[in-house]
Amino acid sequence: MERKKALEIVKEQLTEHRYVHTLGVMETAIALAERYGADRKKAEIAAIFHDYAKFRPKEEMRRIVIQQKMDETLLHYGTELLHAPVGAYLVEHEVGITNQEILSAITNHTTGAVDMPLLDQIIFLADYIEPGRNFPGVDEVRALAQEDLEVACIAALRNTVTFLMKQQQLIFPATIETYNHLQRKRKNR
Amino acid sequence: MERKKALEIVKEQLTEHRYVHTLGVMETAIALAERYGADRKKAEIAAIFHDYAKFRPKEEMRRIVIQQKMDETLLHYGTELLHAPVGAYLVEHEVGITNQEILSAITNHTTGAVDMPLLDQIIFLADYIEPGRNFPGVDEVRALAQEDLEVACIAALRNTVTFLMKQQQLIFPATIETYNHLQRKRKNR
Repeated sequence: MERKKALEIVKEQLTEHRYVHTLGVMETAIALAERYGADRKKAEIAAIFHDYAKFRPKEEMRRIVIQQKMDETLLHYGTELLHAPVGAYLVEHEVGITNQEILSAITNHTTGAVDMPLLDQIIFLADYIEPGRNFPGVDEVRALAQEDLEVACIAALRNTVTFLMKQQQLIFPATIETYNHLQRKRKNR
Repeated sequence: MERKKALEIVKEQLTEHRYVHTLGVMETAIALAERYGADRKKAEIAAIFHDYAKFRPKEEMRRIVIQQKMDETLLHYGTELLHAPVGAYLVEHEVGITNQEILSAITNHTTGAVDMPLLDQIIFLADYIEPGRNFPGVDEVRALAQEDLEVACIAALRNTVTFLMKQQQLIFPATIETYNHLQRKRKNR
């Protein structure tokens, strides 16, 4: 799908603010794909559609999780997590994108997942460091992203967990598993 | 067991620094037991013996985890975690303490555990806030411990996870489960 067409489709689903964020994720994901040898086009499309379901009604998202037999533990950790796997489902069934690498990257962009492939890591990280992001620690992660993708993902996961705990939010177990898995990989290099 | 006898036994197992820490945990645990209506004597004994295995050789601790069919995932998260469940085992089999509440509190004092009973929470927290402890955030947890035991445990778990991640350490999954469980209880009150 051409970028212009993809952006037209996603723009209808998002607020202006979230659309600008999506453009930032797209530019960042393409740059990371070039830096780390991932498919530039897949990074572009995954980034454009990563927040496709962000503004769907919570009830619709819960219903899709149950009907499509997704991991129901998602329902017990705050609705913020649902838009990622539900987004992948809707991007496939409403937009017609069937590439599994793209859908996996959309699915895992919020919680992370153990054994994330390269494209998943790129979208996860691009979502965290795109130029519009401005919170404590983001510049450190931006710098790490130029040097080592997995180390940058570890730092983003660490910052996210720390932030969520400060906010008295629940922590999705797979996010900690992802952190542990990447730490083990790093230590074993 | 009398306090004097218990302290004599444990003193042989610890460095001077760790023995002083143990005395602080004991005083703090007794105060928390009085504050929250737990058994004062069980809190005293659990506190005295909580670090009983702290200086056992790592290989001995690993062997006991395997031989006694403890949760072997412990072996994959850093040796610092082993002294708690191994300590409970040794306190039972070397010292002859068989009270299950005391042994549970010793077992769970480092990682936490979902559904920790009152005594477990008291030892977990006393270990974190005893007067010899001096790190960022400990005073906030000390203040919370006077008001709400579970909220104080949440804060201690949050600080511990944040600290471990800053140190590039692995996070034991049960620690996050404990945090999530206590947060859910708090939100549902």
